[in-house]
Amino acid sequence: MNAEIIAIGSELLTPYRQDTNSLYLTDKLNQMGVEVSFKTVVGDSLENLTQVATVAFSRADVIIFMGGLGPTEDDLTREAVAAALGLPLRRDPAIVTWLEERFAAHGWKMAPNNLKQADVIVGATSLPNANGSAPGMWISGKYDGHAKITMLLPGPPHELKALFEEQCIPRLRAKVPAQFIVTRELKITGMGESQCDARVAPIYKTFTDVQTTILAGAGEIQLHLKTRAATLDAAQERVDELVELIEAEIGDFVFSDNGDSMEQIVGYYLQMRSATLAVAESCTGGLIGERISSVSGSSRYFLGGAVVYSNEMKTELAGVPARLIQKEGAVSSKVAAALAEGIRTRCDATLGLAVTGVAGPNGGTAEKPVGLVFHALASDSGTEVVERKFAGDRKRIRWFASQQALDMVRRKLK
Amino acid sequence: MNAEIIAIGSELLTPYRQDTNSLYLTDKLNQMGVEVSFKTVVGDSLENLTQVATVAFSRADVIIFMGGLGPTEDDLTREAVAAALGLPLRRDPAIVTWLEERFAAHGWKMAPNNLKQADVIVGATSLPNANGSAPGMWISGKYDGHAKITMLLPGPPHELKALFEEQCIPRLRAKVPAQFIVTRELKITGMGESQCDARVAPIYKTFTDVQTTILAGAGEIQLHLKTRAATLDAAQERVDELVELIEAEIGDFVFSDNGDSMEQIVGYYLQMRSATLAVAESCTGGLIGERISSVSGSSRYFLGGAVVYSNEMKTELAGVPARLIQKEGAVSSKVAAALAEGIRTRCDATLGLAVTGVAGPNGGTAEKPVGLVFHALASDSGTEVVERKFAGDRKRIRWFASQQALDMVRRKLK
Repeated sequence: MNAEIIAIGSELLTPYRQDTNSLYLTDKLNQMGVEVSFKTVVGDSLENLTQVATVAFSRADVIIFMGGLGPTEDDLTREAVAAALGLPLRRDPAIVTWLEERFAAHGWKMAPNNLKQADVIVGATSLPNANGSAPGMWISGKYDGHAKITMLLPGPPHELKALFEEQCIPRLRAKVPAQFIVTRELKITGMGESQCDARVAPIYKTFTDVQTTILAGAGEIQLHLKTRAATLDAAQERVDELVELIEAEIGDFVFSDNGDSMEQIVGYYLQMRSATLAVAESCTGGLIGERISSVSGSSRYFLGGAVVYSNEMKTELAGVPARLIQKEGAVSSKVAAALAEGIRTRCDATLGLAVTGVAGPNGGTAEKPVGLVFHALASDSGTEVVERKFAGDRKRIRWFASQQALDMVRRKLK
Repeated sequence: MNAEIIAIGSELLTPYRQDTNSLYLTDKLNQMGVEVSFKTVVGDSLENLTQVATVAFSRADVIIFMGGLGPTEDDLTREAVAAALGLPLRRDPAIVTWLEERFAAHGWKMAPNNLKQADVIVGATSLPNANGSAPGMWISGKYDGHAKITMLLPGPPHELKALFEEQCIPRLRAKVPAQFIVTRELKITGMGESQCDARVAPIYKTFTDVQTTILAGAGEIQLHLKTRAATLDAAQERVDELVELIEAEIGDFVFSDNGDSMEQIVGYYLQMRSATLAVAESCTGGLIGERISSVSGSSRYFLGGAVVYSNEMKTELAGVPARLIQKEGAVSSKVAAALAEGIRTRCDATLGLAVTGVAGPNGGTAEKPVGLVFHALASDSGTEVVERKFAGDRKRIRWFASQQALDMVRRKLK
């Protein structure tokens, strides 16, 4: 079975806005064994929207429309789909009552244009919307002799997700051949994409029933595994088997096998070990602290730290001797170590983490080029320093540096 | 003139990847007066791709294909477009030579499959690609009696942008009616979307020749203005006129009228006033430092600061008396002020900026609920404290808090 996802709204045809609902829907559809073959974006024009609907009915089995179900003149999805299917709309008195009650409950007066939200395509099932005023629709029937499943969903992500999950997935499951799909996401850091692929491809290529996709992101590689089988256990077993072999080969580099982020994993280990962390950041300027504290509950293990952008701050806040900075330079292995040790002592933390480097685009020299970063981790067993040379722009270098620093904590505690 | 943009690649139909080139192209096309009416995503299937091409030729004047021009079996754009147009491909000996030289220059041996990149649709102009091995194509001709402009562009963003800018824009300019389009983006903070619209709508509604779009983002509202006229001066003048009236009404809230970010604007003012800044962050955990230091050259005005996540750190790094924290609570107006003053003194900065609040989702009380944040700015003229109550999740609350804090610096210096 193949699907087409259609996003409706003129704002999605500007340089400023982009449909993201389709990523969520693709994930859910794939899990049920439905592949997405086409995605289309069209504006609030009855003519264009009807044309897009007609094309979709001619080429897909499952057709999902998102948006254009509101009360304004620009909301034309009901009308366009009805026209493409050659079916009339009828006003549903039950929805009219529901709308009236909804407005009354909020103490608002309902403007007459809201009534169009009670229009339902003849033969369609109306899908109540718990989070908004526009109900969705489910239509299952033949078009030009072929069985089609059509859904009309509201555009706002939280309305769409709740409605799809509660009302469309069960209906769709009853229509698609029963199969179980298991997916797994491994996250890897500390190696390049081709280096990773060279080591894991010989393994995953022998699992022809598991679809494996490698995606390279900033500072991490994602390995997406997907398999389908007649039972959940059979699918689960195949994925587990492959994950086990991959982890035997590159386990050290795999930091997550359940989709968790690096900062979540680091937080998990810190809590498990009852350890605390303090940071001293130069070139990352606060990014490491921001990432660690983005995790809810991080106050249990993250004490804080210093953003030591200037040399004086390195001395004042992290206790690095001014002499050392003068002798070695702010971007040096020794200053990185002194920052980590200084902030650990100052904050009385189990671990002190520090980063100093040249994020660019200016400030590089032949000896200390843009991208050179020293990472240090101080603990009661001593201080470890890692020197790396990252490629890319300022944003990318800072991100890589934060990822490497967090990975040092992970490796220390795991 | 209306356009359809078609992104090609099976990875763009997974839950993990999304086309972003179309946002860039939409911006450039709009500037030339070409509106985008449809966007389509299709996978690496000759049948589906040919079908999509045929539909596009039937409904758009300008048709842009992105991707699928490489050397592998999956790269099928040339073949599909040729089939949809009913035109044959011919192998271009000049491109064959260019490909051979390109590989030889890198010391690589060319695999035979690379030769398909030398195939050109009969009647098309090949567009050299300075950044990759896949040339693009430009086709101008009639389809079913209607004039069509067709472009085939490589998928990687840096290849696509360079090729489009250098080779497609001049060709397109020669084809579209001469008009000048001027756009302007105002960024506004400190007021809500409806509040903003209520004040500016009466102004922009009188400028029927300027298209005005309001977009609400986290902590800022964007006002996009666009107009077209027969001369550049005339278009510029109309936009300037509208901007002037809007700034007269809500100028205090407009922090940027050229697209610059809040952190760029703050950096600009700090440099202009030869001022330095130090920060003490509690609930934002490093986000403010990260944003300020994301601007290249920020070391000229950003000294650094402290991430004071725990109470002990507030005392140790920013010199806030432990008594005060005990008496007032860490989330309080007085502690915010003490943090700002403490970090200003400790870092010897012109301005000390501090944030303390409850980012949630846990840790809120009836008296100090999730979303309550105190922002303080200390200078030689005293300390100003702003209390705000933000709605939303942890990420959103932290972002709002950083935006409010930076806006206090902007208002202080402007």
